[in-house]
Amino acid sequence: MTRENYLLWENYMLSCMEDSAHDKEHIYRVLYAALDIARAERNVDLDVLVCACLLHDIGRKEQFKNPPICHARAGADKAYIFLKEHHFTEEFAEQVRACILSHRFRKNNSPQSIEARILFDADKTDVSGALGIARTLLYEGQVSQPLYSLTPDGEVMDGSKDERESFFHEYRHKLEGIYDSFYTIRGKEIARERQAAAADFYQNMLREACVSHREGNKFLRELFDRENIEEEQQR
Amino acid sequence: MTRENYLLWENYMLSCMEDSAHDKEHIYRVLYAALDIARAERNVDLDVLVCACLLHDIGRKEQFKNPPICHARAGADKAYIFLKEHHFTEEFAEQVRACILSHRFRKNNSPQSIEARILFDADKTDVSGALGIARTLLYEGQVSQPLYSLTPDGEVMDGSKDERESFFHEYRHKLEGIYDSFYTIRGKEIARERQAAAADFYQNMLREACVSHREGNKFLRELFDRENIEEEQQR
Repeated sequence: MTRENYLLWENYMLSCMEDSAHDKEHIYRVLYAALDIARAERNVDLDVLVCACLLHDIGRKEQFKNPPICHARAGADKAYIFLKEHHFTEEFAEQVRACILSHRFRKNNSPQSIEARILFDADKTDVSGALGIARTLLYEGQVSQPLYSLTPDGEVMDGSKDERESFFHEYRHKLEGIYDSFYTIRGKEIARERQAAAADFYQNMLREACVSHREGNKFLRELFDRENIEEEQQR
Repeated sequence: MTRENYLLWENYMLSCMEDSAHDKEHIYRVLYAALDIARAERNVDLDVLVCACLLHDIGRKEQFKNPPICHARAGADKAYIFLKEHHFTEEFAEQVRACILSHRFRKNNSPQSIEARILFDADKTDVSGALGIARTLLYEGQVSQPLYSLTPDGEVMDGSKDERESFFHEYRHKLEGIYDSFYTIRGKEIARERQAAAADFYQNMLREACVSHREGNKFLRELFDRENIEEEQQR
């Protein structure tokens, strides 16, 4: 891989991400995880892998503006057109397109090539651990989702059974379960090293929220009860 | 305190917060912490305290739309006008106004009454622990701040010396230091119980990010070096 090509792909990625400055470092972490994973795999085309990593989220803006658009599909097409315009071979542009298209989990579109599987896994490592928690919360802030939902009685729901979108819901329905969905040994290993950090954070936050609401509701009930007793005494 | 007054204040608070659904639970956590703190203090006017807690952030919308506006000042004035319109006494409306005005840390406007100090502390407990981390990240998502900054060499900055706004910067310059700035013993105690959760999360995330960028930059350099060696061999 030439430094010239690297800079060409990197600059195109940066030009596509102007709106979402906060997520730029995600691209580099995915690239770095992919290079780490690739060291333990055979017959990896590093040019395809590096290019696909750098460009894997260039369709994010399209999806953010119009949610029915899938950023993987939009990004795959943008990357293919960009690479053809810059005189990369049809085979190379097609390989990169396939990697980007399958990096997002979809039942009928699993990653086939080793480069596609490494990108898939590298992207998943960035949903693991404390970084995964932080990225999820940044996103929930952008779309104004709450941290958790309450039962009608004012108890904090832990995310497992509630249907409303929230951080706890996202943790229990998505983040918590990613640690088994890896294609590569090294990808799974990176995520597993971070697993406890995510679980600890969720448990700590759940405890803080549960104690606050449970104790608080008790204090409030006492306050209202005291008022009722005083009213009765005044009669 | 009557349930009728509680519902009146609560409904006014909810009507002021329509835009920011994600932060509604913060109001209740502050109220609950305040009631907890109040149990260990003497001569607390619980009506003033509960009203001030429920209304303390009703100026947020004004500040969000126009950042030079201080939400504490805007909220204090809105609460005063609302309470006078609903025939609460001048003294009551004035006490609530003073609490709300001084709940935000400002050198020349420290909380004076016991109710103002309890609100100040209760609000600070919600910046502590895992909940403080989560709320900070939600906010940074809303205003599109990055998680961390990089040195020109591509190393992750831990937030202590960098000047750019980021989550690490906010943690090192604000969240980390709140544990000593309490007026009440119980307020400090609540925050201290949560301190390790916040520190652990920061340390875990810092480690994950540092390892990713350090190793990744090493892998990239190796890739470029390999290219240079191959080029030289071909000459």
